[in-house]
Amino acid sequence: MSVFTTVTPDDLAPFLKRYYIGQLVDLKGIAAGITNTNYFVTTTHGRYVLTLFEALQSSDLPYYVNLTAHLAHHGIAVAAPIANIDDQYTDTLNGRPTLLVPCLPGTVVDEPNVAQCAQVGEMLAQMHLASRSYPAHMPNPRGVQWWADTAAEVMQYLDADTAARLQAEVDLQLRQDYTTLPQGVIHADLFRDNVLLDGDRIGGFIDFYYACNDALLYDLAIALNDWCREEDGDIDRARAEAMLQAYQSVRPLETAEFAAWPVILRGAALRFWTSRLLDFYKPATGEMTYAKDPTQYERVITHHAQRQDFWLTPAPV
Amino acid sequence: MSVFTTVTPDDLAPFLKRYYIGQLVDLKGIAAGITNTNYFVTTTHGRYVLTLFEALQSSDLPYYVNLTAHLAHHGIAVAAPIANIDDQYTDTLNGRPTLLVPCLPGTVVDEPNVAQCAQVGEMLAQMHLASRSYPAHMPNPRGVQWWADTAAEVMQYLDADTAARLQAEVDLQLRQDYTTLPQGVIHADLFRDNVLLDGDRIGGFIDFYYACNDALLYDLAIALNDWCREEDGDIDRARAEAMLQAYQSVRPLETAEFAAWPVILRGAALRFWTSRLLDFYKPATGEMTYAKDPTQYERVITHHAQRQDFWLTPAPV
Repeated sequence: MSVFTTVTPDDLAPFLKRYYIGQLVDLKGIAAGITNTNYFVTTTHGRYVLTLFEALQSSDLPYYVNLTAHLAHHGIAVAAPIANIDDQYTDTLNGRPTLLVPCLPGTVVDEPNVAQCAQVGEMLAQMHLASRSYPAHMPNPRGVQWWADTAAEVMQYLDADTAARLQAEVDLQLRQDYTTLPQGVIHADLFRDNVLLDGDRIGGFIDFYYACNDALLYDLAIALNDWCREEDGDIDRARAEAMLQAYQSVRPLETAEFAAWPVILRGAALRFWTSRLLDFYKPATGEMTYAKDPTQYERVITHHAQRQDFWLTPAPV
Repeated sequence: MSVFTTVTPDDLAPFLKRYYIGQLVDLKGIAAGITNTNYFVTTTHGRYVLTLFEALQSSDLPYYVNLTAHLAHHGIAVAAPIANIDDQYTDTLNGRPTLLVPCLPGTVVDEPNVAQCAQVGEMLAQMHLASRSYPAHMPNPRGVQWWADTAAEVMQYLDADTAARLQAEVDLQLRQDYTTLPQGVIHADLFRDNVLLDGDRIGGFIDFYYACNDALLYDLAIALNDWCREEDGDIDRARAEAMLQAYQSVRPLETAEFAAWPVILRGAALRFWTSRLLDFYKPATGEMTYAKDPTQYERVITHHAQRQDFWLTPAPV
């Protein structure tokens, strides 16, 4: 259930008077999402998504909201936030900070094809370039140190072999310095369920609430680990090549990024291995049903560690 | 022909590198429009309209461009301009100032129904409200004095009866003071061909290049004179009532506006009677084929002058 705060048409009517989007026709809670409350709002003008923020700090909201406005302003496929009568993107409803955006075309695709992975890679690169002129900055709250801290927190629940493998991965990542790679704004959670696809075309990237400033290559690794992953945690070569080639058609990787690629792929997997372990062994109240299988990303790392070929063509110079 | 400046794919490729909208797939000149050059640009991301401004002063562009950005920012159905790599909405191609916007859904409807007229009225009112916070200001270059000057310029070509009727209308309008009515940003040319309709829903208002600051009621009169007009220049009651009621559901008219309504309807018609007379008798080079029948708006005025009922309910208090 993703409706934590109930909104009735009677609650919404005075709220909508603060916007220029027509009269309410229909209101429906959205079941997806585990952090915020979301409603489909249909008006005489069209269909919108209303978000009520349940957990985010109000002070963090401008980073995410202005980022999507900035990206939309540059034509990146994201839902542009709609400003209210006071020219503000965020408002308040039933005691929660809110955001109103238009519905984007497309749906979530569970089994993406090669063309779709290419489109995601291409749009991600465009997003990375378009956000270079975004002035705000937020350090990654879930960077390498968070992986290490989280691993330490769950270590007690793991069998000895798994614990050793986890510790070895943490140690490997702590030895890296990704700050020397090209930095910028990253989505940091560009999984299949955060992209709407309209056929092979990107309807939109959604859910920017993990966005932050970090190595761009890390964002690409997160996306590839999900979009090109097989059930067993291995990576599908055709999809990976397509995604990387499309990404590089917009932003060619630098030599240092070629060198970092095999290890940052494991770092991007470790990010979700540790967070899923945490969700599994120490779930926050009410989030039990959303704990995803942590071993999925353990398997991704195992495959990456044995890999000889990382689908990068052309080879680094 | 609306392609005054030719653009080839080779011209466009380096230009598109200054945007984040994907790679060029197709380029096609648009036949509609009489002032600027327009192309449909299809990229891997979607479909866009590229405008090359042929006549507008570059110094005037920010008023129009920032206005559509402001309206889009508030969720009004307009094509939001796309910013380039330098965060600018306008760029240059083949020596012309340019603008790039996404294609809007919908098509031009030649014979609008009652529901469509209501939607146009409602969105127009929302547009009027949303632009209250738009900071720029441009006086109407085609206000009452322009009607008078233009009438004087074409008077010599008219038969005595028509000339007398035109002069009487000009004199009537010169006696009015519309500056005491609620003022704001108006579209000033919201004819059927400047609205895209997606079924009964507004896909978007387009072509804001006559937009300026003037009496809001004048904008409504221009729209009604076109959207609700029959072939013979009379107004269709059902469409007029629907448009006015929908407009007033968002912005109820004030007492002074009720009083001004019968005469401003004639002013809004005089605006196009005079400009069409000018286009007809003194066409600009190359615009001959676009001269529209001036007598159409003469007939609108004749009907308005004989009318007892101006479709306004509730009646003014």
